[in-house]
Amino acid sequence: MAKIPVGVLGATGTVGQRFVQLLAAHPWFEVVVVTGSERTVGRPYREGVNWVIGGGVPDTIADLIVQPTAPNLDIGGTPPVVFSALPTNEARELEPVFAAAGYAVVTNASAYRMMENVPLLIPEINPDHTGLIPVQQATNNWPGFIVASPNCSTTSAILPLKVFQDAFGLETAVIVTLQSLSGAGYPGVSAMDIIDNVIPYIGGEDVKLENEPKKLLGAFQNGALTLADLRISAQANRVPVLDGHLASVSVKLGRPTTPEEAIAALQTWQPPQICRELPTSPLNLLVYRPEPDRPQPRLDRDAGDGLAWTVGKVRQCHVLDIRYLAITHNTLRGAASGSILNAELLVAQGYIHGKS
Amino acid sequence: MAKIPVGVLGATGTVGQRFVQLLAAHPWFEVVVVTGSERTVGRPYREGVNWVIGGGVPDTIADLIVQPTAPNLDIGGTPPVVFSALPTNEARELEPVFAAAGYAVVTNASAYRMMENVPLLIPEINPDHTGLIPVQQATNNWPGFIVASPNCSTTSAILPLKVFQDAFGLETAVIVTLQSLSGAGYPGVSAMDIIDNVIPYIGGEDVKLENEPKKLLGAFQNGALTLADLRISAQANRVPVLDGHLASVSVKLGRPTTPEEAIAALQTWQPPQICRELPTSPLNLLVYRPEPDRPQPRLDRDAGDGLAWTVGKVRQCHVLDIRYLAITHNTLRGAASGSILNAELLVAQGYIHGKS
Amino acid sequence: MAKIPVGVLGATGTVGQRFVQLLAAHPWFEVVVVTGSERTVGRPYREGVNWVIGGGVPDTIADLIVQPTAPNLDIGGTPPVVFSALPTNEARELEPVFAAAGYAVVTNASAYRMMENVPLLIPEINPDHTGLIPVQQATNNWPGFIVASPNCSTTSAILPLKVFQDAFGLETAVIVTLQSLSGAGYPGVSAMDIIDNVIPYIGGEDVKLENEPKKLLGAFQNGALTLADLRISAQANRVPVLDGHLASVSVKLGRPTTPEEAIAALQTWQPPQICRELPTSPLNLLVYRPEPDRPQPRLDRDAGDGLAWTVGKVRQCHVLDIRYLAITHNTLRGAASGSILNAELLVAQGYIHGKS
Amino acid sequence: MAKIPVGVLGATGTVGQRFVQLLAAHPWFEVVVVTGSERTVGRPYREGVNWVIGGGVPDTIADLIVQPTAPNLDIGGTPPVVFSALPTNEARELEPVFAAAGYAVVTNASAYRMMENVPLLIPEINPDHTGLIPVQQATNNWPGFIVASPNCSTTSAILPLKVFQDAFGLETAVIVTLQSLSGAGYPGVSAMDIIDNVIPYIGGEDVKLENEPKKLLGAFQNGALTLADLRISAQANRVPVLDGHLASVSVKLGRPTTPEEAIAALQTWQPPQICRELPTSPLNLLVYRPEPDRPQPRLDRDAGDGLAWTVGKVRQCHVLDIRYLAITHNTLRGAASGSILNAELLVAQGYIHGKS
Repeated sequence: MAKIPVGVLGATGTVGQRFVQLLAAHPWFEVVVVTGSERTVGRPYREGVNWVIGGGVPDTIADLIVQPTAPNLDIGGTPPVVFSALPTNEARELEPVFAAAGYAVVTNASAYRMMENVPLLIPEINPDHTGLIPVQQATNNWPGFIVASPNCSTTSAILPLKVFQDAFGLETAVIVTLQSLSGAGYPGVSAMDIIDNVIPYIGGEDVKLENEPKKLLGAFQNGALTLADLRISAQANRVPVLDGHLASVSVKLGRPTTPEEAIAALQTWQPPQICRELPTSPLNLLVYRPEPDRPQPRLDRDAGDGLAWTVGKVRQCHVLDIRYLAITHNTLRGAASGSILNAELLVAQGYIHGKS
Repeated sequence: MAKIPVGVLGATGTVGQRFVQLLAAHPWFEVVVVTGSERTVGRPYREGVNWVIGGGVPDTIADLIVQPTAPNLDIGGTPPVVFSALPTNEARELEPVFAAAGYAVVTNASAYRMMENVPLLIPEINPDHTGLIPVQQATNNWPGFIVASPNCSTTSAILPLKVFQDAFGLETAVIVTLQSLSGAGYPGVSAMDIIDNVIPYIGGEDVKLENEPKKLLGAFQNGALTLADLRISAQANRVPVLDGHLASVSVKLGRPTTPEEAIAALQTWQPPQICRELPTSPLNLLVYRPEPDRPQPRLDRDAGDGLAWTVGKVRQCHVLDIRYLAITHNTLRGAASGSILNAELLVAQGYIHGKS
Repeated sequence: MAKIPVGVLGATGTVGQRFVQLLAAHPWFEVVVVTGSERTVGRPYREGVNWVIGGGVPDTIADLIVQPTAPNLDIGGTPPVVFSALPTNEARELEPVFAAAGYAVVTNASAYRMMENVPLLIPEINPDHTGLIPVQQATNNWPGFIVASPNCSTTSAILPLKVFQDAFGLETAVIVTLQSLSGAGYPGVSAMDIIDNVIPYIGGEDVKLENEPKKLLGAFQNGALTLADLRISAQANRVPVLDGHLASVSVKLGRPTTPEEAIAALQTWQPPQICRELPTSPLNLLVYRPEPDRPQPRLDRDAGDGLAWTVGKVRQCHVLDIRYLAITHNTLRGAASGSILNAELLVAQGYIHGKS
Repeated sequence: MAKIPVGVLGATGTVGQRFVQLLAAHPWFEVVVVTGSERTVGRPYREGVNWVIGGGVPDTIADLIVQPTAPNLDIGGTPPVVFSALPTNEARELEPVFAAAGYAVVTNASAYRMMENVPLLIPEINPDHTGLIPVQQATNNWPGFIVASPNCSTTSAILPLKVFQDAFGLETAVIVTLQSLSGAGYPGVSAMDIIDNVIPYIGGEDVKLENEPKKLLGAFQNGALTLADLRISAQANRVPVLDGHLASVSVKLGRPTTPEEAIAALQTWQPPQICRELPTSPLNLLVYRPEPDRPQPRLDRDAGDGLAWTVGKVRQCHVLDIRYLAITHNTLRGAASGSILNAELLVAQGYIHGKS
């Protein structure tokens, strides 16, 4: 099968670089257009980008000329697909413009995550939420559409919440995260602030952690999404770790549950059938570690090529019902790889086609 | 007033070194005896000790000859006072022997913290628990007694719990700690394990965090201690920070409480009157920081010479009632300084006297 | 004696903050004017500054209104004294303007360090170089003058070089530094770059390290400075350390020298007599540590309140003659405190007077 | 070709684990015997080992029963081959015993590195030194032999030294290393010692760095090795980096050399022809990086799967002739992989054969 051509909006930033790196090796997609800021427009990508994420600029993309971020890109495909790595304010302005111009916008930005009828999507968790796409198109009179990924801190905690919701019902969660530096982008956190220290504050993160799971775990029925009836209390902390967000979670479930039942639910849960078709979805999506000192960011962030959840310390909570720890790789599962998975799902479900 | 002579049991270990350092500059106490392991017995302290805590061996103590840890020490005082920095297993064996021999044992070890009639003591929180001392002496037929300090992780979270208990009643707490390396002693955690990482496990710490507050916040009445009716769920994590334990806490209170009320309670709470007489108790015991990114271990651990609690991010908890962050210096308030404060209280209350 | 009024140019930056903090507690000087960028002009210092260096804004300075950096400041004193914490480019433009307007400019900036007739000054090393001041004034037709401090990396290595130059003669030095993060200012180095890493590059630093010692160790005679005849090869590295620059140095001396002779020279060397009058100069200026694993940045950077040099590992070099390690605190001895010491020397030598 | 059976001595330690991990995926070798300490003898390897190096115990080796480290192992092969990951003192005692019993001992230990007639070997640098093997056998009357790898700090600096020796002659070198934590084994350095710090001391390392290059760069002629006529001055430092040793080196060459000539020499140098046959030797053995801020440990340690040297900052030295920085991965090129490469060379040269 011929690869599906795609564009990357904001390709010179760090999230954009990660998209470029991952898509360069992707079996289904091929980057044919990159866009960037005024400073970089008109230059070859290899010259416009300040590549900071390790490895090097992929050869297949290095010579693309950086385009302005405007909806007149020569991508091809039906609809033309763009991955958005735009900063929030640009995303807020430009993503609807691209959707109105007929593009499929697969975004990692936060601007429209909580907008009605925009699917907030993790294929293994709520693939049916793409059913919102036609509603979104009809409501906004858009030929294209927007599909969003959740915040990387939300992602770190979410899969066990989904498993427990399915198995026992889910009522409340107290979440404390220990988040890595790469979540703040580059240059991000000053070394002067974080060496020998913890910063118990990440702007806007607590609110995202408290709201996004309600949408991710909501029910899509009869053309509408009902948010999950769930209360969350979140405290996000920055720690001196390069990659990998650790979430410490206590949950109140719909019925009394033992740790053994909770562990069994985690070990037997299977993602929806359609995920088997997605090349980036890992075979072993949820790694349960029985050791008392796991998961650990450095040891577990790369499980499943950075796309698996590693879960451990599933225990009785003496205040709510069950507590656990979970880790994901924030710049892979929690960012670029997550959006690419979303695009794979859109292909599998027929929302995105190759060259016509 | 002449200084009160004291001994330090296990003076060559890291906790013992901290005792020696702090007591060398203490206005009330004077170290006249140090004990150590077989390897060091008979040598001058300066030679027997491998001093690792910064500064240098205090001159006034450097030439003391290390004694065996046995209850025949030439201390003087009524009763003779020993600070115990013994490892847990030695503490378990030897502390009762010293109490039975008439010594006042002021211990930092965990062995007898939860033993009935042993006061688990923080002078600013439960000074009346020393009322257990005569009960302890009568029950065990000991002329001496044991008084214990709580675990350093318990200490980090406890003062706001006390304030809220006093003001609103306290029912449950979910506690997640981010604990420093010095809490593990020396050499403690391998740098190979903790650089670019978090270890979500500290042996025995969760259980201590779940049980010790019930005793600290219990009520002493009619010669007996009633544990506080309180459920706690704790998750202790080790982070790459040198000193200072950060606790992230959500609490369910006895009545609905706004963050403003909680903050007001923290800002107006006063320690018991007797604490004003204790030279080590800081003037500003509870530092409330209104900034969204405080407290931070490196910036706040030294507040009040390492003896104050710094509290911040007092907010509504969407699951329980109120949440907050608190930091203390684990090797000062949470260890040696805490025990020295206990001894000061014993002096102020008349349980310890100087040379007769 | 009434305190000498001074101004701080660029008082809102991190170097400026350090000046403000140190001068607030200074026995001789009193900050009466602070200047800042356009954004902060006209606001009280406490509001204009983003205080990042720990502690808090000193009360005596907090309410000063930030002034524009122009030579019409109401300071008083003969001449009026300003400490310059300006960024290099502003320093290049403005410091001569202030000198021309009659100010004594005591600068930490690099702009005029190597300019002819500007003393590059460390009071304990070359106090006689202030003899260049009248030459500088005459040459430039300035009523005021500029006096500069060396770069913080130069400072870390320099005192032993001076001692060896005095004792044995000094021909060449190979210097490799391990420099701390605070040397890069704030926010400075991204945590993403330096955790689990070393960056073997600090822009411009190698050249400063190779040239500044020639001036510092030069001879002032007959109204002119002769640079020291000295060849230096320098490699500056950034390491994940908060404060304290470590220099590893091998030197070729004027005559064969044993490590014992070198150590004896270090231990017996005395700073010039006039330094005893300077309140900030530490009693123990050069701390020689005989342990094989010292000096270490975290353990030794605060020696002498951050103003001493700690030297160790003085050994035979198998290629040149002698090698050694030295540490200083880069933001104290290597920056603000160093400049304040320079001003103290100017007072002691009569170049600066109090209120007339 | 059938794989060559090998044993691993001291297989349960961290170096032993690395041997096991690398050999499990090796195209030529197959681990059939593992030995360990008394505590682990008789247990399956997976139970005896405390696996700390990441990944997991390889399935093909997990069920091997740990044997005592004695020269009666059932390995097969002519001669039977053992990789030695023994601690120094055990290596000193046991390696000659194995050689005397007919084993080919390929060791990573330091015990016999400098022993006369033991090749200190890096295949890409001095493959002809294996010519010492028959001399060693004759001298000691051993049917087997010992071949050693250099210290990991020596390794980090050595390849450019070899290139320059070949091209220009080499007279002296001043070497300062910034070495990673994994070089100290596990648990190795305490986190309490190294966070926010540098330790300028690694026991015995300076002497190894000063002596081993003389042997590695020596000339084997007429059945004897002549040490290189070379003076080295070394200062080893431990920095808070997980893996990768950085060496900062200044060299005096046999003739005046420009940086351009030095860079050209590095870029055109080719390892001996025989290295092309060795499966572990990387295609791109010497990576020259022109950027001013490279090499960096985290970014460059994994070049060539941890077997390449990355070299940069080749500049004029103002004291000697040329200076440069070099990095290798200390637990791969500098330890286990290096020894495995040695064994590959021994196969290619016919000193080791498969099953007879």
